[in-house]
Amino acid sequence: MASSRRLSRRGSVDPFIVMDVMEAARIAEAAGRNVVHMEVGQPGTGAPKAALDRLAADMAGGPLGYTVALGLPELRARIARHYGEWYGVDLDPARVVVTAGASGAFLLAFTALFDTGARVGLGLPCYPSYRHILKALGLHAVPFRTSMAARLQPGPSDIADRALDGLIVAGPSNPAGTMLTRDALAALADASAEHDSALISDEIYHGIDYGSRAVSALEVTDDAWVIGSFSKYFSMTGWRVGWMVVPPHAVRQVERLAQNMFICPSHAGQRLALHAMECEVDLQANVATYAANRDLLMEALPRIGFDRIAPPDGAFYIYADIGRWSHDSRAFADEILREADVAVTPGLDFDPEEGHRWIRLSYARGTEEIAEGARRLERFMAGRTPRGDAR
Amino acid sequence: MASSRRLSRRGSVDPFIVMDVMEAARIAEAAGRNVVHMEVGQPGTGAPKAALDRLAADMAGGPLGYTVALGLPELRARIARHYGEWYGVDLDPARVVVTAGASGAFLLAFTALFDTGARVGLGLPCYPSYRHILKALGLHAVPFRTSMAARLQPGPSDIADRALDGLIVAGPSNPAGTMLTRDALAALADASAEHDSALISDEIYHGIDYGSRAVSALEVTDDAWVIGSFSKYFSMTGWRVGWMVVPPHAVRQVERLAQNMFICPSHAGQRLALHAMECEVDLQANVATYAANRDLLMEALPRIGFDRIAPPDGAFYIYADIGRWSHDSRAFADEILREADVAVTPGLDFDPEEGHRWIRLSYARGTEEIAEGARRLERFMAGRTPRGDAR
Repeated sequence: MASSRRLSRRGSVDPFIVMDVMEAARIAEAAGRNVVHMEVGQPGTGAPKAALDRLAADMAGGPLGYTVALGLPELRARIARHYGEWYGVDLDPARVVVTAGASGAFLLAFTALFDTGARVGLGLPCYPSYRHILKALGLHAVPFRTSMAARLQPGPSDIADRALDGLIVAGPSNPAGTMLTRDALAALADASAEHDSALISDEIYHGIDYGSRAVSALEVTDDAWVIGSFSKYFSMTGWRVGWMVVPPHAVRQVERLAQNMFICPSHAGQRLALHAMECEVDLQANVATYAANRDLLMEALPRIGFDRIAPPDGAFYIYADIGRWSHDSRAFADEILREADVAVTPGLDFDPEEGHRWIRLSYARGTEEIAEGARRLERFMAGRTPRGDAR
Repeated sequence: MASSRRLSRRGSVDPFIVMDVMEAARIAEAAGRNVVHMEVGQPGTGAPKAALDRLAADMAGGPLGYTVALGLPELRARIARHYGEWYGVDLDPARVVVTAGASGAFLLAFTALFDTGARVGLGLPCYPSYRHILKALGLHAVPFRTSMAARLQPGPSDIADRALDGLIVAGPSNPAGTMLTRDALAALADASAEHDSALISDEIYHGIDYGSRAVSALEVTDDAWVIGSFSKYFSMTGWRVGWMVVPPHAVRQVERLAQNMFICPSHAGQRLALHAMECEVDLQANVATYAANRDLLMEALPRIGFDRIAPPDGAFYIYADIGRWSHDSRAFADEILREADVAVTPGLDFDPEEGHRWIRLSYARGTEEIAEGARRLERFMAGRTPRGDAR
């Protein structure tokens, strides 16, 4: 009998190049090398200990079966309160949807909002999964360029020009760590309303900011779809819990999709999230570490040759233009790993057009490790000739 | 500024009627009533205690960050070994994909296999989320009728007639608990290959069977997409961990989709799954409870008027034709809850065409509760006049 080798076209998405870097780093470590990890986008710390202790008690207390699809009512209420505490926004808990990580929120938002063929804008560079999830769902990602002058963020004219059904923005962004001001978000919200385009605001790095507090799209509009996460500030990556705040008219549609697509997010993860929200002191200590790491790199990087960067407002990334040194970021990252034992991410993951001349450095680990990474990068760059001069 | 009330058409899926039953039951309980729960499709037990203890140790041992997208290598290997132990199938662990529940496996399988507009067959009655997830992904569910003679399962002619791109089968099925024999599965695999239709085999209730062991599609073909779960036999519903075995040529496509759509399944859930796989004694005790419940209901139900049922081979459901008593299963379920304090699921969730004359009874709770439910149903039915006679 013939065998079917059926696979979809829409499922043929690009791999993450960072996965290849991680695998190469793993092989180097298995061979006895010591690698500094500046490639991975997750905190070096785990969930707060007090929260884990409370979860262990919950686990002993009874079966953690299915929750309702939109999440534990007490967690939804606590997240709503969080918007009051952090942003001064009075939010109805009914609009809060607990999700299987921010990933689950994207799947829900995109299926709830868009029909096949819809056009969804995103400014490059950006988190690669936006465009890959869109493709997997039969939607059209509409990538466009941003500029260093605009700190790698989109503006209202990007919506007007492109007949978009939706736009995804992120602040602090991945890979650049830049944020949108309140005025910039309001201008995007206005342009979205004017052009009947949905505004999806990825706010998963909120809480990790340096200087000014990140602004939520909910401060300027009730129409945005706002996506949050317990992975970054709350340091719970592997537990896969995120959330979404949706416009009131969308709650029922999202609930039905969530029932069918997910049943519910992890019950244990939801309980841990509830407990982690009471661990402010631990979490602020993590942010202080990231801030120290950022200061260290912002001093070191320009000095050693990575001088074209948009200073990050938040998150734990620096996106550096390496065009002076290489126009092949993948080969350049390989070389850094091989010669300096530092793992970094080639920009191609975030920007298929221009990412060949950028790299992303993550500083989510301990300060000693980041300092060692900076020293190794300095040695690696020492005496290197810029590309133009070498021609 | 005008506000956008954009929502997709494909996201407009039917609600689960069982959710309304659960809410009505909750309200009754809040008012002090004692309700027997024969509506919910999850074990009354939680994860095995020894497995939870080992997870608590893992949690104390270090951060449970992201795993690789396809899941912990040791869990994938353990699941592959499981196919040797249970089915005598020699399975390459590289073909095992750990997922965010069986729900996550469906999302991955459907996006990896089908492009927009693809036709995916399913025999009614069946698990409602199949058709709702298909719709949400821009795919066409092609429902068709099955017969009591065929024990509510599809056959090869159902593939030949319908120009399908794929077919979903389930055994033991939800809502009927019926299984496919090895010959029946082989005939479906042959017809699928002949008509270039993908075969997706939902095997999430395997391990819970009465009499003969459930057959895996992997025993008859390497081309099927087989979906498993830690929710039912392993009693881990709220942890949201499942798995999928895919044909060798599909692994890379599924991996890339999983990286983008999920990043990874819950790390803690994966570790708990690994531990639960060593808790055979506890898990078999659960199955013995379900078996006792089944025997009890198979004796009681025909006697009290629910005599048209396909005896379940597995799972913990009985699907009963109530057409003699009512042609409005929703009203009938309401009446049972109101008058007898027993929650049951109207068949409309599983079969929009004929479900108005069926109900599903779940017997996943303790035997005392199920016995009490049977007594209450007996009192409810006593002296009731069949529909035809009442006209």
